[in-house]
Amino acid sequence: MGAMATYDVDSRNKVLRLAKRGLYDEETVFDIVDSALICHVAYEIDGQPYAMPTLVARDGNTILLHGHAKSRTLLHAGAGNPVCITVTHTDGIVLARSVFNHSINYRCAMIYGKGRLITDPDEKLDVLFRFTEKLIPGRWDDTRPSTEQELKGTAAVAVEIESASAKVRTGMPADEPEDLDLPTWAGVIPVRQIFEDPIPEEHTPADMPVPAYLRDLVNKNRV
Amino acid sequence: MGAMATYDVDSRNKVLRLAKRGLYDEETVFDIVDSALICHVAYEIDGQPYAMPTLVARDGNTILLHGHAKSRTLLHAGAGNPVCITVTHTDGIVLARSVFNHSINYRCAMIYGKGRLITDPDEKLDVLFRFTEKLIPGRWDDTRPSTEQELKGTAAVAVEIESASAKVRTGMPADEPEDLDLPTWAGVIPVRQIFEDPIPEEHTPADMPVPAYLRDLVNKNRV
Repeated sequence: MGAMATYDVDSRNKVLRLAKRGLYDEETVFDIVDSALICHVAYEIDGQPYAMPTLVARDGNTILLHGHAKSRTLLHAGAGNPVCITVTHTDGIVLARSVFNHSINYRCAMIYGKGRLITDPDEKLDVLFRFTEKLIPGRWDDTRPSTEQELKGTAAVAVEIESASAKVRTGMPADEPEDLDLPTWAGVIPVRQIFEDPIPEEHTPADMPVPAYLRDLVNKNRV
Repeated sequence: MGAMATYDVDSRNKVLRLAKRGLYDEETVFDIVDSALICHVAYEIDGQPYAMPTLVARDGNTILLHGHAKSRTLLHAGAGNPVCITVTHTDGIVLARSVFNHSINYRCAMIYGKGRLITDPDEKLDVLFRFTEKLIPGRWDDTRPSTEQELKGTAAVAVEIESASAKVRTGMPADEPEDLDLPTWAGVIPVRQIFEDPIPEEHTPADMPVPAYLRDLVNKNRV
């Protein structure tokens, strides 16, 4: 696999504050997207901005969104309007010795592009496959496929990434040198998103084991 | 304490898809905000929408934002432009027997209003107090207060809530009746944001105990 590209920096994707935390390489942006369940899609209609949460997947340099066939977000994005797709992971609370130097550890990707509504049934099926296998690897082959009617009830949008940036903070508080001897506990409280033991729905037979792919998924996201 | 109000429903805050999941009472919206670390602020500049993650706090019917004094997000919001502030909690992966009925359990609040830049130093100090005590109750009295220079380096914005809605999904998958007997494990994988044991910064003396208020915070957010 060749080296990954870097996004050109312009007024749209430039990290303005704490510029040293800004990253413009595809690898960082893709990692942040691929390890997330959800994103927030920003768009504007009639002078009103919206930030809508939704599941997120990726196909190369394209962000995939899906949902109800009549979703305002998807129809607006799918009509080619500009969107910003933001993925944020909260990794820690950073406790400094001064109020001012408190912070948060995080990984955030902001992605810019215009959407395209996917109408071809095979392409739409591929989007559902990518969502299912991203969120729950192994699930696709274990579930009833979508009917034609269900596919019609689903909207899928592809947003090719025109531009993007990531912003990442890691590590310890950056206190002022003169604060280091204050009698205040300083450090980090790690924050994580974890998965817990699967809970069966009432029609799942009591003797049906949790499939190995679900156990693996939970074990990878435990404490 | 009196009964809490309900937001009027109009084209801006109406929950369009799966309307039965829509909630318009202050109590639900406030609970979602108060149990979150971060929000995403949507705004638009020169035809480009942005969804910016930032910490979130609340003072009654007002959402509080803060950050760098030159933050584009804060200066734009603080100038009275319309914003949408969205807070989302991911609570579970919902595994149905069909691809189509897979879902996510979540609690989401979308809040609409216009920002006001806080310039009064005492009011700004109050915002910092509210952020610190929301995120880390007990921390304020244990840290060095902000200097005049640090306060000048901080921007704070108050967004009075004009309108809001919440959308909440809980519980098990809703499979089609004819799918219930399929040999597919169905149920929910709970998802949670948790805090882990505090990690001291290198200048924190080895014999300095983790303060009780930090231990309490972590214990409340453990598995």
